[in-house]
Amino acid sequence: MMDASKYAPGYYPPKENEYRWVKKDHIEKAPAWCSVDLRDGNQALIVPMSLEEKLEFYQMLLEIGFKEIEVGFPAASQTEYEFLRTIIERNMIPEDVTVQVLTQCRDHIIRKTFEAVKGAPRAVIHFYNSTSVAQREQVFQKSKEEIKQIAVEGAKLVKKLSEEYEGNFLFEYSPESFTGTEPDYALEVCNAVLDVMQPTVDRPMIINLPVTVEMSLPHVYANQIEYCSDRLKYRDAVILSTHPHNDRGTGVADTELALLAGAQRVECCLFGNGERTGNVDAITLAMNMYSHGVDPKLDFSNMPHICEVYERVTRMKVNDRQPYAGSLVFAAFSGSHQDAIAKGMHYRKEHHQHQWNCPYLPIDPTDVGRTYDADVIRVNSQSGKGGIGYILEESHGFHLPPKMREDFGYVVKDISDKNHKELKPEEIYQVFNETYCNKMMPLHIVEAHYIQQKGNNITAMLSIEKDGQMHECSAKGNGRLDAVSNAIKLEMGYSYALETYTEHSLEDMGSGSQAVSYIGLKWKNGSTSWGAGLDTDIIRSGIKALVSAINNKPQED
Amino acid sequence: MMDASKYAPGYYPPKENEYRWVKKDHIEKAPAWCSVDLRDGNQALIVPMSLEEKLEFYQMLLEIGFKEIEVGFPAASQTEYEFLRTIIERNMIPEDVTVQVLTQCRDHIIRKTFEAVKGAPRAVIHFYNSTSVAQREQVFQKSKEEIKQIAVEGAKLVKKLSEEYEGNFLFEYSPESFTGTEPDYALEVCNAVLDVMQPTVDRPMIINLPVTVEMSLPHVYANQIEYCSDRLKYRDAVILSTHPHNDRGTGVADTELALLAGAQRVECCLFGNGERTGNVDAITLAMNMYSHGVDPKLDFSNMPHICEVYERVTRMKVNDRQPYAGSLVFAAFSGSHQDAIAKGMHYRKEHHQHQWNCPYLPIDPTDVGRTYDADVIRVNSQSGKGGIGYILEESHGFHLPPKMREDFGYVVKDISDKNHKELKPEEIYQVFNETYCNKMMPLHIVEAHYIQQKGNNITAMLSIEKDGQMHECSAKGNGRLDAVSNAIKLEMGYSYALETYTEHSLEDMGSGSQAVSYIGLKWKNGSTSWGAGLDTDIIRSGIKALVSAINNKPQED
Repeated sequence: MMDASKYAPGYYPPKENEYRWVKKDHIEKAPAWCSVDLRDGNQALIVPMSLEEKLEFYQMLLEIGFKEIEVGFPAASQTEYEFLRTIIERNMIPEDVTVQVLTQCRDHIIRKTFEAVKGAPRAVIHFYNSTSVAQREQVFQKSKEEIKQIAVEGAKLVKKLSEEYEGNFLFEYSPESFTGTEPDYALEVCNAVLDVMQPTVDRPMIINLPVTVEMSLPHVYANQIEYCSDRLKYRDAVILSTHPHNDRGTGVADTELALLAGAQRVECCLFGNGERTGNVDAITLAMNMYSHGVDPKLDFSNMPHICEVYERVTRMKVNDRQPYAGSLVFAAFSGSHQDAIAKGMHYRKEHHQHQWNCPYLPIDPTDVGRTYDADVIRVNSQSGKGGIGYILEESHGFHLPPKMREDFGYVVKDISDKNHKELKPEEIYQVFNETYCNKMMPLHIVEAHYIQQKGNNITAMLSIEKDGQMHECSAKGNGRLDAVSNAIKLEMGYSYALETYTEHSLEDMGSGSQAVSYIGLKWKNGSTSWGAGLDTDIIRSGIKALVSAINNKPQED
Repeated sequence: MMDASKYAPGYYPPKENEYRWVKKDHIEKAPAWCSVDLRDGNQALIVPMSLEEKLEFYQMLLEIGFKEIEVGFPAASQTEYEFLRTIIERNMIPEDVTVQVLTQCRDHIIRKTFEAVKGAPRAVIHFYNSTSVAQREQVFQKSKEEIKQIAVEGAKLVKKLSEEYEGNFLFEYSPESFTGTEPDYALEVCNAVLDVMQPTVDRPMIINLPVTVEMSLPHVYANQIEYCSDRLKYRDAVILSTHPHNDRGTGVADTELALLAGAQRVECCLFGNGERTGNVDAITLAMNMYSHGVDPKLDFSNMPHICEVYERVTRMKVNDRQPYAGSLVFAAFSGSHQDAIAKGMHYRKEHHQHQWNCPYLPIDPTDVGRTYDADVIRVNSQSGKGGIGYILEESHGFHLPPKMREDFGYVVKDISDKNHKELKPEEIYQVFNETYCNKMMPLHIVEAHYIQQKGNNITAMLSIEKDGQMHECSAKGNGRLDAVSNAIKLEMGYSYALETYTEHSLEDMGSGSQAVSYIGLKWKNGSTSWGAGLDTDIIRSGIKALVSAINNKPQED
């Protein structure tokens, strides 16, 4: 058994709040995005990326549209140093992109960082020290004042070196482990750093309040952000940044609520890669805004490609249920969901809707490079007639009558249940074809002649083969189909009523235009059998449907 | 490129709110948990569970401590019907556990549901219909009033049948797709259902307001819950339930904020299984409460077992970064994190702390059946001396002097970097052993004699072998180690200073108590070489350490 007495909330809610953020109901504008995939993400991989892999990832980040990219901790890692030198020396930093480097507030590390970043067209020097109660006590064994001095001395050196080295430098400071720090104290440290750096509106500085370890409910973090945002000095010259991790599974919520509460910038990783449970997922954040009609300024229209590169270079797996990206996130297996989606998609077509509001699909899957066919209505033993019928309609153009759709639903579910597997659209078509279409066994019309009589009456004269035996027969009817049906009934001694008969033309799928007919026969015992007929001639398609339905007659009838 | 103009917020914030919830900073008490793994979870699997697999999963849910379990939609699925009949007929429902069955508000389905649940000791009949704007328009093409009547008629039939059938029935109603429904209208429908059902404090009814599709930021849902909670009729006789999905990656946040806002019950799945992006994860919710000192009333102390069963029967994968459960969620690869964790763990031991507050570890991994050795400090090319030293200490009891720890850190990181792989504790020990311990090549003391002289002086007389050549030599010193060092220096022409010398006894690892010595020699070129010696005799361990350090002497010296 687990013992909860070992724990208590280890965070510090602000003493007062205005809670202005709680009254806003959505994010109105994309924040400044900073990818930390190559640093925080990379340092959490079992096998960190090689130089070549990092270059490929970096290129992808540029294509997605990131304008700020933390490329490493060059003073602490040779690979990160080499990567930084490579992109600088090969001129791989576009004009509108800023690279960012991380450094602790330690003299020799700061110096090495400035060496590493030499020649970059622009760079953010991101310096940090840990300010949490736990780290002050357990790791540094220093007082609040001493920890603040580490930050202040770091800031002074950063400022001094930035004047000595040539380069276009911007600055970021993080009170690391902010979520385990008293907000008042974090504010005191940040304001002391700001007093050193003296940012201006024209040359603002980033203050980043990271959720280094997620310790509270997300709204407590939003309250902390609001509190600090309202009390930071040089506020107009500060870009307030957030950097959430996901230990409590609420990294996305932390970020979104923080953006309402005053944060302006987000440090994040693709697919929520990063230390432990990961950094907050850039994709979910961006797509959440997108689904509310806000341009996220990041492009995920080719998600399958992004997944492929990510999985290959990081050796991590995109979770099947990862929002907007996982293999199953648009899938509906259950009957009622499939039915609603099918109806929603029909409604959308009929009403020529631009605005997306299809049930059970938070966004249009095609917006992120997915397909309706393969990703949405997926068929297994939980599926229903609506979805299965929809697939047959979308993939091969068959519009089954509602009751036949139900019959077919049971056939497909049963096969999926027995074989313990999902059925793909091609398999569903195959089942449809084998079960209903042009089924000429055991009964088969070898020859048919028709005589048109006065009125609408027609006489059909048939040669029928069944179980190796030939039958010659004839009967009248009010049309060819009716006459054929009557002749067979009479000769074979069958007793059924033609309950359903519909037909339509099939869109040309390359083999010439065809007609398809569906026939349902109600037998003496009350059950219905179904058949479908395909032919270039509409009447012949009906007769084939009839014969197919007869050949599907219930055993016991 | 993606086109955001296709979207707009599709949810309905309440007209007014008191926002009382935002002032609470943590959840004080576990909610009523209802597992929907066997229904909502199962219906989202590519291959749904077989009867046997469901029975195993059900057994595990009981062991974890779930008291309410939704077992299926028995009127819609033969397998779910069979499962329900099996647990009823085999008396597999413990006295304190209630099973729950789902049914649409449709006459024949409700009737079939009562048939299916016959003989259960207690059961929740959970009936629902979709109330969202999109479903009213696109799927049902019915007015608000007509949709409300579906709910009311369903309630009437449920009430009637519950009186006809014997059984201890409880009731739950869900306005499905609540998040796409106007809160006022959802409330109107729920209140109409409550008027039919007439719940009492002694016989309360569950009203479930599901996040069928996640459409808004989590606090908007909390606002909706607060609004409805304040306005539901028979409020004392209502158990307000929540059932969040995770389309926006904020299902956990929805639930937590809803619990602050008035919800009392949570429908959830293990590992966030469920339709599309999943239902909210029961484990994260429970462990989040636990980490704040609240007993969640669910037991996840054997998480590796739960992961194993889950992965086997659902054929899904537990994400490596799944909070509290994934393989990497307690892992620290980076040097600074490892160092802080090592210091935190030391601090914890020294101060005999009961309360958990170790940096970078949101909970004690051993609480969920994980180990410090395998799961926390993990070593690759991003790791640092602190973590690597800590592993050597924890796994084999070696307390390296700080500077030797640094030297060893570089050795290990380099190997990991070159081989592009993580190093496990045993491999780290092996590297330590091969690099420093009892390294008797190329120089080797074949024989040593010591003469004790007046004062503390000692003369060492040595036979040394190096590169196949024998050397005889002797020198004085203020102890045996010093004398040996002086003799080697003199004979071999070496020039070094003994900079560091520490030793300690090793805990008995089964082969008798041993001493270990560490020696650092500073050479003319300024670099330091390190050696370690192991021996049952402390003096001999020092001499072995010296020889090892000499054998590690820098090439260029």
